[in-house]
Amino acid sequence: MNGLRLSEVSWNRLAFNINTPLKGQKSGSHALSTQAGLSQQGNERPKDPKLWPYFQDGLRRIDYVLTYHVQKPQSTRKLSAKSCLCFKFRREQSSPPAHEDPELAAQEQRLDYHEDDQRLRREEFEENLREMGLEMEREEGNKIPGVGFLKIHAPWEVLCREAEFMKLKMPTFKVFVLKVNMFVQKVTATLQPKVGENRVYEILKRTKCTRAKYIMGKSHFLICDVVLILSLQILCEEWASYSIFYKYQPIGLIRKYFGEKVGLYFAWLGVYTQMLIPAAIVGVIVFLYGCVTVEDNIPSMEVCDERNNITMCPICDRVCSYWKLVTACGTARASHLFDNAATVFFAIFMALWATMFMEHWKRRQMRLNYIWDLTSFEDAEVSHPRAEYEFHVMKKSLKKEKPPKVESLFLLCGFVCSMQICVTLAIVFGVVLYRVSIMTALHMSSTPSFRTNIRATVKTTAAIINLIIIIIMDEVYGAIARWLTIMEVPKTDKSFEERLIFKTFILKFANAFTPIVYLAFFRGRIIGRPGKYIYVMGSYRMEECAHAGCLMELCIQLCITMLGKQLIQNNLFEIGVPKLKKMLRQRKIDKKHQEELDKTLHRHEKDHFLGPFVGLNPEYMEMIIQFGMVTLFVASFPLAPLFALLNNIIEIRLDAKKFVTELRRPIAVRAKDIGIWYTLLRGLSKVAVIVNAFVISFTSDFIPRLVYQYMYSPDGTLHGFVNHTLSYFNVSHFQPGTEPTESMHLGYKVEVCRYKDYRDPPWSDTPYEFSRQFWAILAARLAFVIVFQNVVMLMSDFVDWLIPDIPKDISIQIHNERNLIVELFMKQEQGKKYRNTIGDPSPQPLRSRPSSQKRISVLSFVCY
Amino acid sequence: MNGLRLSEVSWNRLAFNINTPLKGQKSGSHALSTQAGLSQQGNERPKDPKLWPYFQDGLRRIDYVLTYHVQKPQSTRKLSAKSCLCFKFRREQSSPPAHEDPELAAQEQRLDYHEDDQRLRREEFEENLREMGLEMEREEGNKIPGVGFLKIHAPWEVLCREAEFMKLKMPTFKVFVLKVNMFVQKVTATLQPKVGENRVYEILKRTKCTRAKYIMGKSHFLICDVVLILSLQILCEEWASYSIFYKYQPIGLIRKYFGEKVGLYFAWLGVYTQMLIPAAIVGVIVFLYGCVTVEDNIPSMEVCDERNNITMCPICDRVCSYWKLVTACGTARASHLFDNAATVFFAIFMALWATMFMEHWKRRQMRLNYIWDLTSFEDAEVSHPRAEYEFHVMKKSLKKEKPPKVESLFLLCGFVCSMQICVTLAIVFGVVLYRVSIMTALHMSSTPSFRTNIRATVKTTAAIINLIIIIIMDEVYGAIARWLTIMEVPKTDKSFEERLIFKTFILKFANAFTPIVYLAFFRGRIIGRPGKYIYVMGSYRMEECAHAGCLMELCIQLCITMLGKQLIQNNLFEIGVPKLKKMLRQRKIDKKHQEELDKTLHRHEKDHFLGPFVGLNPEYMEMIIQFGMVTLFVASFPLAPLFALLNNIIEIRLDAKKFVTELRRPIAVRAKDIGIWYTLLRGLSKVAVIVNAFVISFTSDFIPRLVYQYMYSPDGTLHGFVNHTLSYFNVSHFQPGTEPTESMHLGYKVEVCRYKDYRDPPWSDTPYEFSRQFWAILAARLAFVIVFQNVVMLMSDFVDWLIPDIPKDISIQIHNERNLIVELFMKQEQGKKYRNTIGDPSPQPLRSRPSSQKRISVLSFVCY
Repeated sequence: MNGLRLSEVSWNRLAFNINTPLKGQKSGSHALSTQAGLSQQGNERPKDPKLWPYFQDGLRRIDYVLTYHVQKPQSTRKLSAKSCLCFKFRREQSSPPAHEDPELAAQEQRLDYHEDDQRLRREEFEENLREMGLEMEREEGNKIPGVGFLKIHAPWEVLCREAEFMKLKMPTFKVFVLKVNMFVQKVTATLQPKVGENRVYEILKRTKCTRAKYIMGKSHFLICDVVLILSLQILCEEWASYSIFYKYQPIGLIRKYFGEKVGLYFAWLGVYTQMLIPAAIVGVIVFLYGCVTVEDNIPSMEVCDERNNITMCPICDRVCSYWKLVTACGTARASHLFDNAATVFFAIFMALWATMFMEHWKRRQMRLNYIWDLTSFEDAEVSHPRAEYEFHVMKKSLKKEKPPKVESLFLLCGFVCSMQICVTLAIVFGVVLYRVSIMTALHMSSTPSFRTNIRATVKTTAAIINLIIIIIMDEVYGAIARWLTIMEVPKTDKSFEERLIFKTFILKFANAFTPIVYLAFFRGRIIGRPGKYIYVMGSYRMEECAHAGCLMELCIQLCITMLGKQLIQNNLFEIGVPKLKKMLRQRKIDKKHQEELDKTLHRHEKDHFLGPFVGLNPEYMEMIIQFGMVTLFVASFPLAPLFALLNNIIEIRLDAKKFVTELRRPIAVRAKDIGIWYTLLRGLSKVAVIVNAFVISFTSDFIPRLVYQYMYSPDGTLHGFVNHTLSYFNVSHFQPGTEPTESMHLGYKVEVCRYKDYRDPPWSDTPYEFSRQFWAILAARLAFVIVFQNVVMLMSDFVDWLIPDIPKDISIQIHNERNLIVELFMKQEQGKKYRNTIGDPSPQPLRSRPSSQKRISVLSFVCY
Repeated sequence: MNGLRLSEVSWNRLAFNINTPLKGQKSGSHALSTQAGLSQQGNERPKDPKLWPYFQDGLRRIDYVLTYHVQKPQSTRKLSAKSCLCFKFRREQSSPPAHEDPELAAQEQRLDYHEDDQRLRREEFEENLREMGLEMEREEGNKIPGVGFLKIHAPWEVLCREAEFMKLKMPTFKVFVLKVNMFVQKVTATLQPKVGENRVYEILKRTKCTRAKYIMGKSHFLICDVVLILSLQILCEEWASYSIFYKYQPIGLIRKYFGEKVGLYFAWLGVYTQMLIPAAIVGVIVFLYGCVTVEDNIPSMEVCDERNNITMCPICDRVCSYWKLVTACGTARASHLFDNAATVFFAIFMALWATMFMEHWKRRQMRLNYIWDLTSFEDAEVSHPRAEYEFHVMKKSLKKEKPPKVESLFLLCGFVCSMQICVTLAIVFGVVLYRVSIMTALHMSSTPSFRTNIRATVKTTAAIINLIIIIIMDEVYGAIARWLTIMEVPKTDKSFEERLIFKTFILKFANAFTPIVYLAFFRGRIIGRPGKYIYVMGSYRMEECAHAGCLMELCIQLCITMLGKQLIQNNLFEIGVPKLKKMLRQRKIDKKHQEELDKTLHRHEKDHFLGPFVGLNPEYMEMIIQFGMVTLFVASFPLAPLFALLNNIIEIRLDAKKFVTELRRPIAVRAKDIGIWYTLLRGLSKVAVIVNAFVISFTSDFIPRLVYQYMYSPDGTLHGFVNHTLSYFNVSHFQPGTEPTESMHLGYKVEVCRYKDYRDPPWSDTPYEFSRQFWAILAARLAFVIVFQNVVMLMSDFVDWLIPDIPKDISIQIHNERNLIVELFMKQEQGKKYRNTIGDPSPQPLRSRPSSQKRISVLSFVCY
């Protein structure tokens, strides 16, 4: 642990992106894997040295390229940029495409350094690599000024050693199995190239610089490696194309090209999209059921019936007047589309769907682990401290300061987070105020035709405003989360990433869902009652819901958020911004050089101008917010899975295109699972159960309908339900100054108006108190929540238990392979025994010393 | 899979149980492990051949003894017993000590068999063993008539081969680590003996009989193995003794002697008992808090206040009369001990305690797995079909029948299970009837002093009756579960055990908890109201609760069940029955032989008379029912953890004594975890949260008190609470014939009496309807359930997330060992490279062929 690993040194890696197939390369890469050292002996000379990079001698293939900056005396501006490359890279790696100018950031974080020292460190590192058996060639600033390339070739022996070394980490058993399998399937050759290539990176990672430890992040190697050009071509054709959206993804190839971590992301996205298909179908059926039954729905029929001459209390003070319930007919009918018996079924279905999805993913992951031979891979680099952390600790110890207090940082973080959530709440409140004031203002206008459109207009504009704020705040919150995490200086890369994800998740989630939660659970519940309304900001009454509950508005909000967020984020951020960045980057190169460079540059030199890979977190985050939309409020919007499905079909190919053509090839990172995202998904699907229970029982009128039908209805039907939900108000009890000015608007004098609540009538002993019905319905709502939550949780656990985590065929395969080994071993042992008994002195190649004591240890070494 | 393994043949194993230390044996067992084949060469001749069994030649040690029955022509009675030994054994293995006569059972299940065939099969099996390299000696019926012993000796080579074979299943990595560790710790010698010994059993398991497959369970080998006598002695002194109850258990030694499965059970029991200590302390504090605050409790003060002249309605028809509330003073005060604010805290504490316990156990298990080197052990024998299953399938196919319908069996099982639960309900109902009728009968007696004791007497006798029924039905249900599982014919031993455990758990759990659930949630809630009581069986009114709720009675029931069940089951079943069985077994041997046998018999021959090991399931089951008592209703009985703790301290030593002295030594079974029991425990601790939520909100008066205090109390205190909980009843509304005959019992004419319920008074518009208060309190109760459940679940998840599953020191250790290997390997590689470069032609013992292609494969074989 005394040295400096490459992982602590700032570096980057460039990938080749080509769009033409290169037939010659296939055999080239093949050669490496099957015929040892052939490329060294020049048997496979490249047709065009520009397409397949070789050393100057034309014999040794370049396996990896490290790039670094060299001093360019004519430009002082470049110099400052160079000094902070390390920090820039760190930030780039997992932030969403940032808008900041790297030069600007660089100047802020400028650190002292010496050119000499940097060179020394580079040389030491090169020396270490050479000791590990790698061969190198240097090319400094002759084509691109200021950039040096260190080309690395890994000889066959080194590759072999690394291959053995990697296998050492795997259990005997797996290797045995692999051998058996490979023999049977004869796929040895196709697997090899990847192994050979990755080895090189393993050496680079392990190489340490023991000297100059205290100068952090100063040697500016940029690593780029030689890509599997063939794979890229196939990926372009078979993956990153919209025309094949119906096909499975070539996950094996994706993993081979981008590494396990990216492979798992796309596999997960695939499983998610696939699982959305049944959910979308059932959602559409539920919606259609609502459409079909809208004509038979007694409550909405009652609302629309002109004969039920119900006069409602005004929805705002003074300027609004009494109104007829029949005018809410349209809303009542529309509400039924989303608020019917099928909704309850759909909420249960989606809770089980979420469990099934998690299980399905677990199985898929298990299968991929088996296929990719990761079952016994364990992340060995968990506890490498980050460079920033060591730097931070060192700085502190130099200044004789106390180590950073974890508690104070934790408090700061909690404070900032809760402040941000307060900001979100304030924004929601602002939108509410906007709605209320606009509504009042519009009511003042006396054009009747204009008034009828009031509600719809206000709702839609408010939802759009909400959406825009959400999108803006999303970026702000992302930056804040990153800043907070950097402040914390977590010890390892893993903990850095986990903390960052967690914070970003909390903030972005709160941002996206606060308006929806407000609509679902608070809107229309804190309005007071006629004659005793609750006022905010002096004179604004809190908003009421339409007669049929707030479900309709919740739907509109969800619909606009989902559609808008996806369209804007997809189009603007994922396509537009990277294109813009690329343009900006290319502008930096002097115009005069541009064309000639295009012709002469090698592929790895061209790749320098592609966008950096910023990690998978933004992709995951987008998807998990969508998953939240699909599961959390699905009871109020059964079309959510359909919207998500349509988005994801595009999303997969969009991401694919981005990964293949827009970004530098990311470093292949091994991963066994999707990490913290799985935990977050699980948490979401648990929260979804309780949220849906509350949506059904409190937002929709499902429970009041049931209670009316079974407790109060005279004939056991819903006839009279609407009347039952409306309380009476004596207009003489209005607070002075709040009674409507146009009280004769409806053409007759109103003495008692109705409002939607369960309160005692004015003529009872306890006027306007919550009535017995109110408490009975409240109890029923709460009882429903308990029953729903526990039944659904029980069913989820049952589904979880029912579906085995390991697919049947995989477990059978593992079992069979184990049996095979046992038999193999026994046969071998019997053969040995036979030889021993007949006293055969033939050489036993694997055993050198016959003493029984020694033999055991040799044997155990041989076998394991 | 075509052969017949030993595991399909009926067999048993005898253990030596000695009570004197045998110093000589230490070196004897040591010899086997460290000095190859020494015992064969006679270097370590036993001092006394009776103490350490050897073959007749006195050279070869006996490692395992198989015993079988031979025909004894003089006894036809024995013959029938013999034929069914297989079935008898199967049943014995995991059923609780049954009362049935084995001879009787044997005759019922008699099958045709031929003596010749049995001998043939035995010989084939012996032949197969001999082929595996084992050496055997036969001893037939010369000391004990009718019993033959087949002594087995495993030569050194065989042990070596098996040792290698076992290691083959482990990953390279572990073995490497082990090697490093062992080198460092120099503990190689102490670990070895166990390994050498277990190998023999592995061979026996693997040996197949290919002929005579269709005759099942006929060769009656009884296997007994040679024990680690030294360990036993230490176990006797350091474990199976009541005087050292405060010490940790020697888990390592237990595991070494009894195998991992038993070791894990005792480790689990130890962790559970240890974790009970804080729970017991907090429980006692909560109880003491109740005792201290009983004087300040306003509701019980109000009940006891003579001035509150409250006349209550009679608790039974006609014979009971009106009564003064003040007579319930004692109950009200006692109730406060278990129903106060601290109870809510304690329920939350215990829910978190349960989570913490599960986490703690997970960590302990992980640590044991690491120490016992099981981290990469996987149960390879999962899918061996059971003998009964193959027999069943064969029988079906011979009779050309359809295979057994899984659905119909499932239905049958469900039917029987639900019928049993109905039986349990009927029993509970019977006890209720008993209580009601006795109560009425006692009320008829006119002695006042007698009457005051009525309630207490009836409660206690009813609880004792319940207890006795529970204990009897426990045994019945155990047998039913076993019968059902045998009917199902599960495919593998593992699924047999899991299904059996699951069924037994369901039935026993329902049996133990139905009376408690009735008391907690149903008693006193379905009584109707005065003037409209609910009658059962014609004229019996359902029981009421005392004024202060049913919590008090729940307490008594829990207390009696826990104490009684533990005392009776511990003393009677765990100590008494095995002793009785042993006596019965010894009686079978002719009296005249008894004394001379005692002198001449070898240890393995004496062990024949010990009780068989019936599996750990009864032990686990007992503990899990106790865990249920401790967690499920802890809100009503804070002393439960204390009772459980006291019981478990005894239980550990009791079980230890039983395992060491009463039972044949069980076959050492490898296990990584406690299997299905963990799932059941997890399930219980989840259910506990919701049950406790319901107990607090529905059984206790916690919520009504809160609601009164914050909604109805004029001064914000509990003054007037008792009056608020009592509704009014006009005595003129009694149904004719139900009014009390002695209506002047209290000395004045009663016009309005009070009863505990929230109903409208007789003078309201809706007399005797549930009042607004009723619904408000119901809503509050339900809201509390939701809040409590979700808060506690969230906290549990948080605790779960907070405590890492793998202890920090273990994960650091694993990490360090991994680093060590990497360094070792790299050093080795560098040395190799050096030799290669200087062209050293010295023999490389592990590599025979220099071609690079070949080298890779050899290397990979060498290293893994």
